[in-house]
Amino acid sequence: MRMRKKKWALPYLDEQSSVVIKDPTINKGKWKNELNKKILHLEIGTGKGDYITQMRYKDENIGWIGMEKDPNVACLAVKKIVDNEIDNILYINNDAENILEYFDQKEINSIHLNFSDPWPKKGHSKRRLSSTNFLNKYYDILEDDGCIIMKTDNSKLFEFSLVEFLKHKFILEEVWVDFRRDEHEEDAITEYERKFMDLGQPIYRAIFKKVV
Amino acid sequence: MRMRKKKWALPYLDEQSSVVIKDPTINKGKWKNELNKKILHLEIGTGKGDYITQMRYKDENIGWIGMEKDPNVACLAVKKIVDNEIDNILYINNDAENILEYFDQKEINSIHLNFSDPWPKKGHSKRRLSSTNFLNKYYDILEDDGCIIMKTDNSKLFEFSLVEFLKHKFILEEVWVDFRRDEHEEDAITEYERKFMDLGQPIYRAIFKKVV
Repeated sequence: MRMRKKKWALPYLDEQSSVVIKDPTINKGKWKNELNKKILHLEIGTGKGDYITQMRYKDENIGWIGMEKDPNVACLAVKKIVDNEIDNILYINNDAENILEYFDQKEINSIHLNFSDPWPKKGHSKRRLSSTNFLNKYYDILEDDGCIIMKTDNSKLFEFSLVEFLKHKFILEEVWVDFRRDEHEEDAITEYERKFMDLGQPIYRAIFKKVV
Repeated sequence: MRMRKKKWALPYLDEQSSVVIKDPTINKGKWKNELNKKILHLEIGTGKGDYITQMRYKDENIGWIGMEKDPNVACLAVKKIVDNEIDNILYINNDAENILEYFDQKEINSIHLNFSDPWPKKGHSKRRLSSTNFLNKYYDILEDDGCIIMKTDNSKLFEFSLVEFLKHKFILEEVWVDFRRDEHEEDAITEYERKFMDLGQPIYRAIFKKVV
């Protein structure tokens, strides 16, 4: 999700130091303590934060970390967290490239990837959040029983991701090629997703688990 | 595909003994010789034979075997083969349950499953052509480099199959959640498939390879 530049974005993110962790390396290995939760979920690419701010109601035992590198979008997610006084989400306005610096081995229980940028050009495939480079990092920070939950409207990204994940020490736990065919209490529908649903377009979803 | 009973089905299949192999166990280990081809493809559940009779033009090095247990459908497939004097397809009017009796270990190069009966009820899941019982048999008759190519319009069957195959010593080589989004010279479109395409419904396809 690309947004126009917002003048207020960076100063605002700077101010919200109780939510936005400026130097996430300091929390490495300590996120569960920081959030006072035993289970840690990470959403990479939160966009406007619609998903994470809905999901955090589903289970009070879960602490959430949101990541989004674009400050012009991150500021909207953080505003939702701050304005609603949400206390079980921390936020990182930085690149997923660096997750090994931010998280310890096996620190994360679940990673959520929602409607990630498909980077459709072949030359850009390495930028996709389901490319080899990222998958190896996810593997490291996930606990042995951990999983990755991916959701997208993009058929080509989904096809690419299925093949990539299964090549890289992940197994397919569950998959949906038309996720909204049925009700799913366990998942949140964002404004962004609703647009595709209203157009009758299928939503794809998969859960991958680590092969240990 | 369920069809009305046809009085002429069984007598007709009986007559076409050059195409329909009455006792397939006799050909076990000899199908390549019988067809005088080095590569052997097997379609399980041919329906009316639209797929196999188109596919057999794609590569003259490939010999084909069609299987369909319902004689009321099989007779239509065989009629296409006979009337068009097709000489690179042999036919088995019998149950896929028995493939280990018909084929030697590693005798088959590719297995094709097209629009198989989804058997939607949970209690019937063992009848699905992608259930454990069948997958173990496919594994045995496929050569080490062999693959299974599956195509369906049924989202639930496809989801079930992806998970099942990947649990059973197969890896995902390629996958399409909207196969007709692009042109595919390598594949044939049947009358049956065309109906779904005309309705704008997605066609799902996957290629699985043996893990050796």
